[in-house]
Amino acid sequence: MAEDIVLLAAVSILSACQLAFYAALVGKSRMKHKVIPPAVTGAPEFERTLRAQQNYVEFMPIFLVLLWTAGFYFHQETAAVFGLLYIIARHIYFRGYTGSVQGRVPGFLMCLAILFLLLLVAVVGIAGSFLKQYLDLNIFKKMHKMI
Amino acid sequence: MAEDIVLLAAVSILSACQLAFYAALVGKSRMKHKVIPPAVTGAPEFERTLRAQQNYVEFMPIFLVLLWTAGFYFHQETAAVFGLLYIIARHIYFRGYTGSVQGRVPGFLMCLAILFLLLLVAVVGIAGSFLKQYLDLNIFKKMHKMI
Amino acid sequence: MAEDIVLLAAVSILSACQLAFYAALVGKSRMKHKVIPPAVTGAPEFERTLRAQQNYVEFMPIFLVLLWTAGFYFHQETAAVFGLLYIIARHIYFRGYTGSVQGRVPGFLMCLAILFLLLLVAVVGIAGSFLKQYLDLNIFKKMHKMI
Repeated sequence: MAEDIVLLAAVSILSACQLAFYAALVGKSRMKHKVIPPAVTGAPEFERTLRAQQNYVEFMPIFLVLLWTAGFYFHQETAAVFGLLYIIARHIYFRGYTGSVQGRVPGFLMCLAILFLLLLVAVVGIAGSFLKQYLDLNIFKKMHKMI
Repeated sequence: MAEDIVLLAAVSILSACQLAFYAALVGKSRMKHKVIPPAVTGAPEFERTLRAQQNYVEFMPIFLVLLWTAGFYFHQETAAVFGLLYIIARHIYFRGYTGSVQGRVPGFLMCLAILFLLLLVAVVGIAGSFLKQYLDLNIFKKMHKMI
Repeated sequence: MAEDIVLLAAVSILSACQLAFYAALVGKSRMKHKVIPPAVTGAPEFERTLRAQQNYVEFMPIFLVLLWTAGFYFHQETAAVFGLLYIIARHIYFRGYTGSVQGRVPGFLMCLAILFLLLLVAVVGIAGSFLKQYLDLNIFKKMHKMI
């Protein structure tokens, strides 16, 4: 068990560290632009930095659910690679958004594409597990035999 | 193991897709009401849509923790049914809130009631596991024998 | 398996209940200061209460990822104790922040310190698991033998 999920655990920790790092950058931007807590409005650059981090927060449970189900029911290594790509795409998104409003688009589209791929393999994996359990069919083995 | 949690995984994915769908609706409402990012204020309908989605985000870790502990320590099928009801209740809440401020109340009360039921069975399940582990008592078996 | 994670499950439920409780306090503060939803600005005390809860939401996935990886790959009891301390630190943070802007600092520093410790033991545990799996080295057993 522990070995079947260690890559997912490592990617999750990396992503958590990235999110914490962005929270620190929001704090730094607060000081730079003199936005005293609990205010959440002020200089446009601060507002963009805050929104970029908030968007990560909003998608964090979605990302973690898809990463773990894809990794557990489909293939751990595949999910872990998608997870690393997601972390890179989040970085492109964050850098882009803090730079300009338009700059958020490329990174965000990358994030969505990776989440969609994770969803796809997660659904395939879970469907396979359902068929195996409730219909006593093992699709993956049958496909393997056919090839 | 994989079979003991496949329904929880499926419900989690459904919920994650729902949350992503609401994030898309917030984006659509932004365009409709011309609320340029990173602004989070504007037309009342946009603000209600945003708050409805934000409320889901806030409760997502609570929901996932309760769903998985209830399903793992009490009974998977029970937890999965509550999870599906929660997704329906969230939909009623979202539709209601985007319609009017008062419209958020019925759906929200349903969400809270379901979360409370999940908490209840999760605590029962975990208490049973504690007793079994630390006091070497198997409550569930004893109850079964008495009946 | 179920016994290896029961303390982590219990701490996660406690933390989820705490977060739900703070959401209720935000609602109560809304009524007290007459901040009609979906507004998120108003009396300073309300804004501080809201930010204190939002900050918990932002850190919730970070906390849960670190708690579970630390507990699963390093040592369950250690992670659970850190988790309980985190819940106490969050309480100090919330109480402090609702009182005054400056009052948020001590509790927040405690939270960060505990998250850092959880990260440390999680990384040690995962590194050990990697070495064991990919290099066939069991560091923990070797250290045990040396002592």
